[in-house]
Amino acid sequence: MTGLTLDDLVQRLRAVLDGPGRAVEAVVLREGWKAALPQLHALRLEVKRLGAWAPHLTPEHGGMGLSLVQFAQVSEVLGRSPIGHWLCNCQAPDIGNMELMHTHADPSLQARWLMPLMHGEIRSCFAMTEPEHAGSNPVWMSTTAVRDADDYVITGHKWFTTGADGAAFTIVMAVTAPDAPPHKRATMIVVPTDTPGFSIVQNIMVMGERGGDHASHAEVRFDAVRVPVTNRIGSEGQGFELAQARLGPGRVHHCMRWIGICERAFDLMCERAVQRELSPGEPLARRDTVQHWVAESRAEIDAARLLVLDAALALETRGPLGAREQISAIKFHTAAVLQRVLDRAIQVHGAMGLTDATPLAFWWAHERGARIYDGPDEVHKQSLGRAILKRYATS
Amino acid sequence: MTGLTLDDLVQRLRAVLDGPGRAVEAVVLREGWKAALPQLHALRLEVKRLGAWAPHLTPEHGGMGLSLVQFAQVSEVLGRSPIGHWLCNCQAPDIGNMELMHTHADPSLQARWLMPLMHGEIRSCFAMTEPEHAGSNPVWMSTTAVRDADDYVITGHKWFTTGADGAAFTIVMAVTAPDAPPHKRATMIVVPTDTPGFSIVQNIMVMGERGGDHASHAEVRFDAVRVPVTNRIGSEGQGFELAQARLGPGRVHHCMRWIGICERAFDLMCERAVQRELSPGEPLARRDTVQHWVAESRAEIDAARLLVLDAALALETRGPLGAREQISAIKFHTAAVLQRVLDRAIQVHGAMGLTDATPLAFWWAHERGARIYDGPDEVHKQSLGRAILKRYATS
Amino acid sequence: MTGLTLDDLVQRLRAVLDGPGRAVEAVVLREGWKAALPQLHALRLEVKRLGAWAPHLTPEHGGMGLSLVQFAQVSEVLGRSPIGHWLCNCQAPDIGNMELMHTHADPSLQARWLMPLMHGEIRSCFAMTEPEHAGSNPVWMSTTAVRDADDYVITGHKWFTTGADGAAFTIVMAVTAPDAPPHKRATMIVVPTDTPGFSIVQNIMVMGERGGDHASHAEVRFDAVRVPVTNRIGSEGQGFELAQARLGPGRVHHCMRWIGICERAFDLMCERAVQRELSPGEPLARRDTVQHWVAESRAEIDAARLLVLDAALALETRGPLGAREQISAIKFHTAAVLQRVLDRAIQVHGAMGLTDATPLAFWWAHERGARIYDGPDEVHKQSLGRAILKRYATS
Amino acid sequence: MTGLTLDDLVQRLRAVLDGPGRAVEAVVLREGWKAALPQLHALRLEVKRLGAWAPHLTPEHGGMGLSLVQFAQVSEVLGRSPIGHWLCNCQAPDIGNMELMHTHADPSLQARWLMPLMHGEIRSCFAMTEPEHAGSNPVWMSTTAVRDADDYVITGHKWFTTGADGAAFTIVMAVTAPDAPPHKRATMIVVPTDTPGFSIVQNIMVMGERGGDHASHAEVRFDAVRVPVTNRIGSEGQGFELAQARLGPGRVHHCMRWIGICERAFDLMCERAVQRELSPGEPLARRDTVQHWVAESRAEIDAARLLVLDAALALETRGPLGAREQISAIKFHTAAVLQRVLDRAIQVHGAMGLTDATPLAFWWAHERGARIYDGPDEVHKQSLGRAILKRYATS
Repeated sequence: MTGLTLDDLVQRLRAVLDGPGRAVEAVVLREGWKAALPQLHALRLEVKRLGAWAPHLTPEHGGMGLSLVQFAQVSEVLGRSPIGHWLCNCQAPDIGNMELMHTHADPSLQARWLMPLMHGEIRSCFAMTEPEHAGSNPVWMSTTAVRDADDYVITGHKWFTTGADGAAFTIVMAVTAPDAPPHKRATMIVVPTDTPGFSIVQNIMVMGERGGDHASHAEVRFDAVRVPVTNRIGSEGQGFELAQARLGPGRVHHCMRWIGICERAFDLMCERAVQRELSPGEPLARRDTVQHWVAESRAEIDAARLLVLDAALALETRGPLGAREQISAIKFHTAAVLQRVLDRAIQVHGAMGLTDATPLAFWWAHERGARIYDGPDEVHKQSLGRAILKRYATS
Repeated sequence: MTGLTLDDLVQRLRAVLDGPGRAVEAVVLREGWKAALPQLHALRLEVKRLGAWAPHLTPEHGGMGLSLVQFAQVSEVLGRSPIGHWLCNCQAPDIGNMELMHTHADPSLQARWLMPLMHGEIRSCFAMTEPEHAGSNPVWMSTTAVRDADDYVITGHKWFTTGADGAAFTIVMAVTAPDAPPHKRATMIVVPTDTPGFSIVQNIMVMGERGGDHASHAEVRFDAVRVPVTNRIGSEGQGFELAQARLGPGRVHHCMRWIGICERAFDLMCERAVQRELSPGEPLARRDTVQHWVAESRAEIDAARLLVLDAALALETRGPLGAREQISAIKFHTAAVLQRVLDRAIQVHGAMGLTDATPLAFWWAHERGARIYDGPDEVHKQSLGRAILKRYATS
Repeated sequence: MTGLTLDDLVQRLRAVLDGPGRAVEAVVLREGWKAALPQLHALRLEVKRLGAWAPHLTPEHGGMGLSLVQFAQVSEVLGRSPIGHWLCNCQAPDIGNMELMHTHADPSLQARWLMPLMHGEIRSCFAMTEPEHAGSNPVWMSTTAVRDADDYVITGHKWFTTGADGAAFTIVMAVTAPDAPPHKRATMIVVPTDTPGFSIVQNIMVMGERGGDHASHAEVRFDAVRVPVTNRIGSEGQGFELAQARLGPGRVHHCMRWIGICERAFDLMCERAVQRELSPGEPLARRDTVQHWVAESRAEIDAARLLVLDAALALETRGPLGAREQISAIKFHTAAVLQRVLDRAIQVHGAMGLTDATPLAFWWAHERGARIYDGPDEVHKQSLGRAILKRYATS
Repeated sequence: MTGLTLDDLVQRLRAVLDGPGRAVEAVVLREGWKAALPQLHALRLEVKRLGAWAPHLTPEHGGMGLSLVQFAQVSEVLGRSPIGHWLCNCQAPDIGNMELMHTHADPSLQARWLMPLMHGEIRSCFAMTEPEHAGSNPVWMSTTAVRDADDYVITGHKWFTTGADGAAFTIVMAVTAPDAPPHKRATMIVVPTDTPGFSIVQNIMVMGERGGDHASHAEVRFDAVRVPVTNRIGSEGQGFELAQARLGPGRVHHCMRWIGICERAFDLMCERAVQRELSPGEPLARRDTVQHWVAESRAEIDAARLLVLDAALALETRGPLGAREQISAIKFHTAAVLQRVLDRAIQVHGAMGLTDATPLAFWWAHERGARIYDGPDEVHKQSLGRAILKRYATS
């Protein structure tokens, strides 16, 4: 960890985000990610200088070598701002792609794509969800990759490919064995975005915003896209398995990021409550309704954080299978806390909460997806509920 | 009512909104209100030809002469689309301004501003809320109108002035008697938007969108804006009283519009549930979770509608004072139902619910304000609760 | 309606319940129903003298000939006390049995059992639910009635047979045609409780109370109970159909009774809030939390009442089939409002809310069943949700 | 810890409660605590033999010398049954009295009352709450103790004195310095229950049950009760301070007991869901609604447990003042989880959930008080909210 304690690191990152980061965040909220790129890159350099680069990577790759539990705590502080994770180069979906390629891509793929990704020189994306099939059923997809000599020829239609706009490559999930058992059908393949046949149909309008660059979700097409078989990650048919492995830590990252959002929303709520007067000398903070919201939010956030850290520890010590139920639990539980806390913080802000004066409106709109992406609440609840009930049935 | 029964009228409007209106709505959602203006105006003509123009106005003013209860039912069907009310020229804030000027503006003001407003030739806005003071305390404001011979000189800062962008005039609330009792301090004055000193600082970013034209909320400044005293509506110091009178029917309109949103969201939820398959042959509609959401939404919407119509009837028969408690009740109750129904509908849609493929995302973002504008939930709950408890205290 | 207007009637009944009824209610809460029987019967005579007897029966049967919508309004005021319905002889399950026998029992059965029931000389019960089968699946039962010459020989095990303790007869649902389609298997049969083979195993401990007499729920056994076939109600195999017909009005009765409970709880909550001081001169009513609870309860109760009355009207005008969905909606919606309102009223009372000083604790304990009896929430939600979704599927 | 690991201890206690404890629990539920006393005492001996006696006491006093965090974990397993804590002699209010007297009573008081209490030979109670004053304001009371030579003469009226029925002594809170600042007015005094002037007015009907012995809540009177000043605990005016100190660990005990209740309710819910069929071969566990309830309960219980254990650790390491906010948070947060989990478990059980077949009904009725006793939710939320907001106000 390059000499920094975890506490130091967290304090430093917080100082950046609550300090110079605020101005950059304001540009992102007001003018969009693309417009803020110069300031974003400048601030990124500063973060790098602090030694806070790529907390998830090993020191030999320029990272900080944090354990998952340590990284989770860093993820919380980064979550305080929409720009936090990107500044440290640990933003989704790139972080997931790094983890995946680090373990499962062959050296030449790593040299060509992983290295510059780890250095923040390029961005990547991950094309899995298809508009025609429920994202909640990850084994049901129509995109195919057909072997032709030493190439795959990929044809399909994806959406919610986050950050495709400006990405150097995508990892695509495509069916290579349509007749195999459902969990063995798909394969992951690296597709450079300048490959003929790959196209971005549009940046999807999400909550009224098209977004751009890293902050966008694209609809993309693969129209007989041809790439060499060496672009494959892992083995044929291993796609679903790799996606699952990728999701465990990914959900911990998301959940801790949401805790960070909650903490920022909590600060904003409390600050507003003590400053905003309903009449001269009568701040909102005097209302017991507001006091209750503050108290409920405090309890919910703290309980959720402990639950997520416990799941992170389980994932580290017992592996993906051993932690599967806990990972499901944190996903829906934390997303619900997030929505409640944001709701209260906005209500305390009144009309101002709907504007770009704080990131609350951004999160209200864009984190409505927290209960949908990476598996909707209902899928996680069903999966956890079934797993538990099964044990009672056989006992 | 120009020969149409209420049922006929509702059916015709629904046919427009669910028919040709869908394409126009799609442009609004995808490209914004301004981009859709040509199509919007074309469709407006069609609506006018149907005899569905200005349901709230008397026939002599080109309207339909509906009672409040009847109009409420029309408002529901118009609420099915973000473009509904505008098509019939009964959109907020213009409708409130029409009602106000119809009763309280002198004939010359009416001739100059009300007539073209009723004909849909111009738009207007209403400047009341100030960023420096809690909107929930309507008697606390800093904008002043100082009498200077036959003029008022107005100075102040307002925001959330809906539709200021492109409006021909605003009605502004300004303090004319700073030392009067709080409810007697303010006066309403018509200010043409081309008056020197009036400026739009910005269309406020609301939930990540600046919007434009009718679909925008402006921050505006009055910098020694001079208008003749004849531009006053009502008498000096009557501003708060007029605002209150304006709010009763306004809240019924909003609530019934929200019921309309709920009904559209309900339709979308049900349609999606029967169409979307989780796996081949297994539609979402088979899940009892989804069945429960449908049932709960049905009960909540129907109960809320009955409550709103009952309040509308009370307002018609017992007047603003007699209906005050009911109006408070419908405001927070219906806004809560709206948010729950939208939430469920989005969840059933999954990722698609976050996009512009339906108006659900638009409403999720922009109707978060429903629990804030026209008095936040907490103000209405407190006011209703206190009024009730007072009766128990003195009994 | 014997010269009384509905309003008069409601006022009179309210005067009884809020007047002399309170002392009787207190005995019921403190010592149980059985101990209060002398006072209960004395008060019943008073109610009879007021002309408020049996509002659901026709004048020729000594009743008031109210429509369902009118009766619903009476049911609300009676619901204000646990003793209300019994005082007017319109308590469940007797009222349902009267309605059933009035239409479907032959004259000799009517003379022998219905007449004294209508006059309040005897009580009855209804044995349907079986401990071995989910009550939510009304066509699945094990109790059989085997034809033997001119008799039925009934064998089975029932529970939650309300009021069996002290009842003169029960109506039992028993399978007469095990191989018929599920909805045609069962038959309703009158069984006098002194018939050999009929026994009460126990009054079930419900929420820690065994109860007694009318206020009890029994586990009963039918051990080769022999009754003449003329004791049948309706035709063989018609049991389920008759049970369904019985349930529609029954649910309206329950829902309006719950509204009455809500109103009483609301009064208690408001009275306590203005009287109870947190410190000298600082009543609970000053807290905005309490004000909000009052406001939310007011809105929820009023909306629920309108929904129930609307369903009652539908049942009267469109019949059971036409009102089926609305009946499902009111059942779960009103039960939920009931639980929320009781919860708030108890919380305002603090420790006192847990005691017998008010009926709140009684209702908290015994109306937890409101979300279970006559079909659990989940059955009604599923049934309503499916019916609605089916229309979307085929459209 | 007498050679047992914490895990061993927990396993042994669980084996007792889920084994022979079930029959004793059933008697308690069906016939009441008093009727079950012989079986209870027999089982207590067995627990003592296991070495699981008085986990909160030091070995020299016959206890196990557990830390608060360890005891919290024991408290969870004991919470699985209403008889659990009593079996180990760590039931409220005796445990609080032991902790109090251990630290603050002089040796002669300890010898006379604490020793037999620690050995389980007598029971005690704690008389603080008064019917005339809100329990949520602990400094407002009317009971006085007037110094008369070497005696206190105590006069007052208390209620919710848990377990007074059969107790050997009570500790009473009485005002000794009416003119002191509110937090310095009261003193704690030991009053043997056979002292002239002490009387139990009644065991209060709580949720329809009077209860008896340990399982009762009494209304008591102190009518010029005379005890020597040496019966005082701590110094004069220290009553409130001691009560506060007593409450911190007390709330941890309660919260962990509630977690235990949740876990038992969770087991019951799951067992019922896999066993109960809606139709042949279709268990409740197949419903996604039930699966969701199981999942939500799992997440909520686990998060709450972590929050409580974290607060217990804070209390041990940072003391009452340092842990004050966390203690408030766990009190209302865990009580809310408890009510939700019980609600779901009952709903899954249907009518059976209302009976004495499980302890669910007992808890539904008697743990409604969890949101009231030891400070109602609103007091804890307000206190926590204010403490937090104060920091923001001054920053």
